Amino acid sequence: MEGFIGRFSINDGFVAGYQRIINDNVIPYEEKAIRDEIEGAAKSGAVANFEAAAEALENGRTDKTFYGMVFQDSDVAKWLEAAAYDLVLFPDKELERRCDEMIALVGRAQEKDGYLDTYFTLARLGRVEAAKTGADGLHLINEGNAPDGERQPFSNLMEAHELYCAGHMIEAGVAYAQCTGKTGLLDIVCRLSDRLYDEFITKGREGYPGHPEIELALMRLYDHTGNRKYYELAKHFIDVRGVDRDFYRKEKEKRNWQVWGMDPEDTAYFQCDAPVRDLKYASGHAVRVVYLLSGAADVARESGDESLKEACERLWKNITQKRMYLTGGIGSCYEGEAFTEDFHLPNDTAYAETCASIGLMFFARRMLKLGKKGEYGDVMERAFYNGVLSGMTLSGTEFFYVNPLESLPGISGKAKTHKHALPVRPKWFACACCPPNIARLLPSIADYAFEKEGNTLYSHLFIGGELDLKDEFGGKIKVATEYPFKGEVSYEFYPDSGKMDMTFAVRLPEWSRDTEVLLNGNKIYGAGSKPEGAGEGFEISESLGYLYISGKFGPEDMVTLKLDMRARTVYADTRVSADTGKIAYMRGPLVYCAEGRDNNGSVLDLRVFAGAQPLEEWSDELNGIVTMTVPGQRICKRDEERLYYEDKPEIVPEMVHMIPYYAWANRGENEMRVWLTEAAAV
Amino acid sequence: MEGFIGRFSINDGFVAGYQRIINDNVIPYEEKAIRDEIEGAAKSGAVANFEAAAEALENGRTDKTFYGMVFQDSDVAKWLEAAAYDLVLFPDKELERRCDEMIALVGRAQEKDGYLDTYFTLARLGRVEAAKTGADGLHLINEGNAPDGERQPFSNLMEAHELYCAGHMIEAGVAYAQCTGKTGLLDIVCRLSDRLYDEFITKGREGYPGHPEIELALMRLYDHTGNRKYYELAKHFIDVRGVDRDFYRKEKEKRNWQVWGMDPEDTAYFQCDAPVRDLKYASGHAVRVVYLLSGAADVARESGDESLKEACERLWKNITQKRMYLTGGIGSCYEGEAFTEDFHLPNDTAYAETCASIGLMFFARRMLKLGKKGEYGDVMERAFYNGVLSGMTLSGTEFFYVNPLESLPGISGKAKTHKHALPVRPKWFACACCPPNIARLLPSIADYAFEKEGNTLYSHLFIGGELDLKDEFGGKIKVATEYPFKGEVSYEFYPDSGKMDMTFAVRLPEWSRDTEVLLNGNKIYGAGSKPEGAGEGFEISESLGYLYISGKFGPEDMVTLKLDMRARTVYADTRVSADTGKIAYMRGPLVYCAEGRDNNGSVLDLRVFAGAQPLEEWSDELNGIVTMTVPGQRICKRDEERLYYEDKPEIVPEMVHMIPYYAWANRGENEMRVWLTEAAAV
Repeated sequence: MEGFIGRFSINDGFVAGYQRIINDNVIPYEEKAIRDEIEGAAKSGAVANFEAAAEALENGRTDKTFYGMVFQDSDVAKWLEAAAYDLVLFPDKELERRCDEMIALVGRAQEKDGYLDTYFTLARLGRVEAAKTGADGLHLINEGNAPDGERQPFSNLMEAHELYCAGHMIEAGVAYAQCTGKTGLLDIVCRLSDRLYDEFITKGREGYPGHPEIELALMRLYDHTGNRKYYELAKHFIDVRGVDRDFYRKEKEKRNWQVWGMDPEDTAYFQCDAPVRDLKYASGHAVRVVYLLSGAADVARESGDESLKEACERLWKNITQKRMYLTGGIGSCYEGEAFTEDFHLPNDTAYAETCASIGLMFFARRMLKLGKKGEYGDVMERAFYNGVLSGMTLSGTEFFYVNPLESLPGISGKAKTHKHALPVRPKWFACACCPPNIARLLPSIADYAFEKEGNTLYSHLFIGGELDLKDEFGGKIKVATEYPFKGEVSYEFYPDSGKMDMTFAVRLPEWSRDTEVLLNGNKIYGAGSKPEGAGEGFEISESLGYLYISGKFGPEDMVTLKLDMRARTVYADTRVSADTGKIAYMRGPLVYCAEGRDNNGSVLDLRVFAGAQPLEEWSDELNGIVTMTVPGQRICKRDEERLYYEDKPEIVPEMVHMIPYYAWANRGENEMRVWLTEAAAV
Repeated sequence: MEGFIGRFSINDGFVAGYQRIINDNVIPYEEKAIRDEIEGAAKSGAVANFEAAAEALENGRTDKTFYGMVFQDSDVAKWLEAAAYDLVLFPDKELERRCDEMIALVGRAQEKDGYLDTYFTLARLGRVEAAKTGADGLHLINEGNAPDGERQPFSNLMEAHELYCAGHMIEAGVAYAQCTGKTGLLDIVCRLSDRLYDEFITKGREGYPGHPEIELALMRLYDHTGNRKYYELAKHFIDVRGVDRDFYRKEKEKRNWQVWGMDPEDTAYFQCDAPVRDLKYASGHAVRVVYLLSGAADVARESGDESLKEACERLWKNITQKRMYLTGGIGSCYEGEAFTEDFHLPNDTAYAETCASIGLMFFARRMLKLGKKGEYGDVMERAFYNGVLSGMTLSGTEFFYVNPLESLPGISGKAKTHKHALPVRPKWFACACCPPNIARLLPSIADYAFEKEGNTLYSHLFIGGELDLKDEFGGKIKVATEYPFKGEVSYEFYPDSGKMDMTFAVRLPEWSRDTEVLLNGNKIYGAGSKPEGAGEGFEISESLGYLYISGKFGPEDMVTLKLDMRARTVYADTRVSADTGKIAYMRGPLVYCAEGRDNNGSVLDLRVFAGAQPLEEWSDELNGIVTMTVPGQRICKRDEERLYYEDKPEIVPEMVHMIPYYAWANRGENEMRVWLTEAAAV
């Protein structure tokens, strides 16, 4: 990434609050969880696995047993990565010391040849035993019973996630070096990556990872170190994937053990039904898709490979034009946490995993590197403020994997088809993928908000704070905003001396119907604007959803973005069966929803008048939000106990109250709907 | 049942046509299927299993192998039962000879002690091997690999369906005796039932069937033979069920083989989470629920057990007021083909198995024996004309298991959550439960249409034909109607001599807003009626949805029912999330639907004006139907490729065309919806 993390101190009321919560609650909780220090919580075993592997390597053998998911190592990696970012925002010597100790432990668990994966090390020199079922009831582990000795490294690329774990540790190594300057973990992951290069390139081992992640990680390592081997290996995994689409079946035939017993013929699930360049649809496990495409976009950027770039653009379109929820949620099918078919977007059974929305942000961010288009920034913003933030309570202590667009008490979390769609966030999960992903995203949000390319600084997301650009442009920019509730964003330039000679580019969100940009009070973009009034030496141009302001910015210069924050009604393509006859509301980047709590207990019996402009009001509830109220109707409850009736329902006028979607389910279990029924013609 | 089957010759244009199709197409096809004589079709093995078991018993051993589902025997039983009814309607010496031969074969496969189940006989004296997956892809068979000798009778009541198979053979035995007077199969099933009595009553074996069916079958056998042992055994299975709710878990621990590996802890699936009398909700596999309740209602009728009757009424209410589709479909969850939670009735992923709707008719018919309430007849009619008849193409050559209320080409039959919800009917299924169930229902429909209780003859369903009542009332009744398309039903009385002294009771369907009944042209029921004008000696009374006409009916007497057939709009309880903002249309007992075929290719983008009265027109299409047309709108397709948009959709007026639901999917794959979006307020 760009390395803006340590140089953007966020001070707005919104994102800064989340960063504080991550620092105060999430990272400490996560640390305790992986150390098995939380009473009553599901055992993690993640740190204990590293200790056992270190002991095994030091003594040649251990009696200790690997515990947890086959990818348990990645929890340690994700915690280290999150902590790295967090240390820049909230320096903490004690936390840094514990990170250093953890890194030392990881180093001790690394085999002499660079191999690092406690599951396989303990399979050889200790024992493995997997948790049978996740405490969340979602993740079933069904280990085969092969003698441990038969679990050889790289013998189960389809299921065993060792390249996935390696990827996360690589990301952590790069992040820790970037954020602290310490290269201990970087050295470890370079040795690990060299070992993988040796295996897959030098020795020519066949295959590709069942769960992509290493591709984007290797590209980060390449970007940081400049070592071209890492790019080559990343490109290799992209190039070979799906070329032999039968690889996993053949791999399975060669071994007599399994993790979950996944079906190697379900190639779409693993994104290997065709070579990456030939993929036509986003299919299978949603997180894998966007992790893979993030790596592919990185490789396309470095290689200039047009066919790979086209594949990324094709799949971007398929996702965002056919398979994405209004919230930026992806993976509409809970079976396989997966993409399904075009326009199949059920609201109540949605999977829309928090991690998948985070992955969509990864992908969008990489697409921005391939080409500056506002739509990439728009989707990144949509996913962030809706599908990602809904993954966590406002207090940062409870988490959703699954972010449905409709919640039905009595059905959600209860019916067999809704077991996954919990109506309230639980504390933690045995499969701890989503909470740590939020924990590493939020403190690193600066790298999503800003990008420097050539002489241009891009503002993709609108977050208040102070951005240090000493090295790039000899100064800093102060961003002031009360986003996402207010639409004004001002950028003040503070050169260290003289002027900052640069192009400043700001995203013009598509959702804002009436956007204005002012330079020193002169309207240079928007209705009736006079770009020529920008002042001497400034050039203004617009391209693909960005406004470019080129010139020499002095201490007196200020760019002001004014977005149209009026509430909007949204319609879905009629091919989305679940949304026919319904509308949703948005305000700025925020999707809204109606909860029973604000609507006399129920929302299914409510209808709204699409033509009416909602009333928008500030409320101190839920950490401070803008609520929306729209005229509607309630269908009256009937006295009779019957499912179907033929007389027209009795209808009374009622105002319908809405809150931002990210804040739902913070006040106990209740009905929730994003897509509201339109009032019917009389 | 009543034994009206052979004495009601149906001659209307609707049901008679279906009976002809069953005779001409379904029963011959079914026979060929179970004999493995259809090229290209999935192997059945059903008859071959009986031959192998007979050979094994005669020679003490066979090399032959059991093939197919563990309940494959029931296919032979269902065919024999259907053929029995059919032989009365369409006498056919050749078919009867083949039935007799089949019965002789069944007799040869019966063990000396009366035991009859080819799976277990071949497990002991031959081999068993199950088909791996049904040709329909729906039914996965996962046999354990225990030595065949360990598959002992009654050792897997949870999964092995031997009591289910016994139940179907008992039903066939009773039917064949009733319809042909031949008692060969009746003798076989009496010996079998005696063997079961010996096992479960005399020897006191614990347990109860995983798939109910034997309870209602034993009650039929009791009703026919008067042998109280069969009633006792039926009552026993009802009484012990769920008392030890842990029974299946303990049973599983005692054996080292399995059929599907079902979870014995999922007691709700098997309706044994509580004793039958204490069940509060219809839970688990829908067919099992209604088969069980049919048996329970029969036992309650015979025993006069109020607590059992109350349980039946409680579950009836739960099903019909909380868990039933408009079509009479039940089992809204495809996982487990099961009931889920109250008001959870998704349209596109519905299971709504044909067999379950047939089972609901069984249950309704038995509830009528417990008490005459119009609602039982109403539901029986709803299920028959919608959820049951939709299970078959109009030609009787293709079949649905699953009857969704919405079909989405590109998603239905394709997405992982929609694999079961095929958009067109396939030819046959490896698990051939639904087609044979239709085959035995239609030729026996007379016993659902009429009931004699005391001196009263009830007309529950409205079907044209001639009913022989010589034995009961010394005459016959001719019913003339063009139901379900026209609402007039006339009953003419033809005493053999003198008068027919009786009470004639006719159902007054709740859906008919303006019903009239005339006796000899005098209106005796309905607005402005004069019951006193019925004529001398006739008494008129109404009770719980039935009109009772008591008197002496002579050859000049005619009762005419005039039902209000005007099209109706139907609303669902707002707690049914899938139906909010939508309405459905009905006409008479028929639920309507809109297919893309009649609506320029698509229906999801259509909206209807609930206030408009539909135009109803006769059409010769689809074997003759009344079509419905209602004013509506179409949301115009947009040029842009995008999922969500904020400008109001362009809307054009368009008429929306509908056909009866039972006739859907007879013209290839296309969009279908029962619940249509209401046009929105402007």
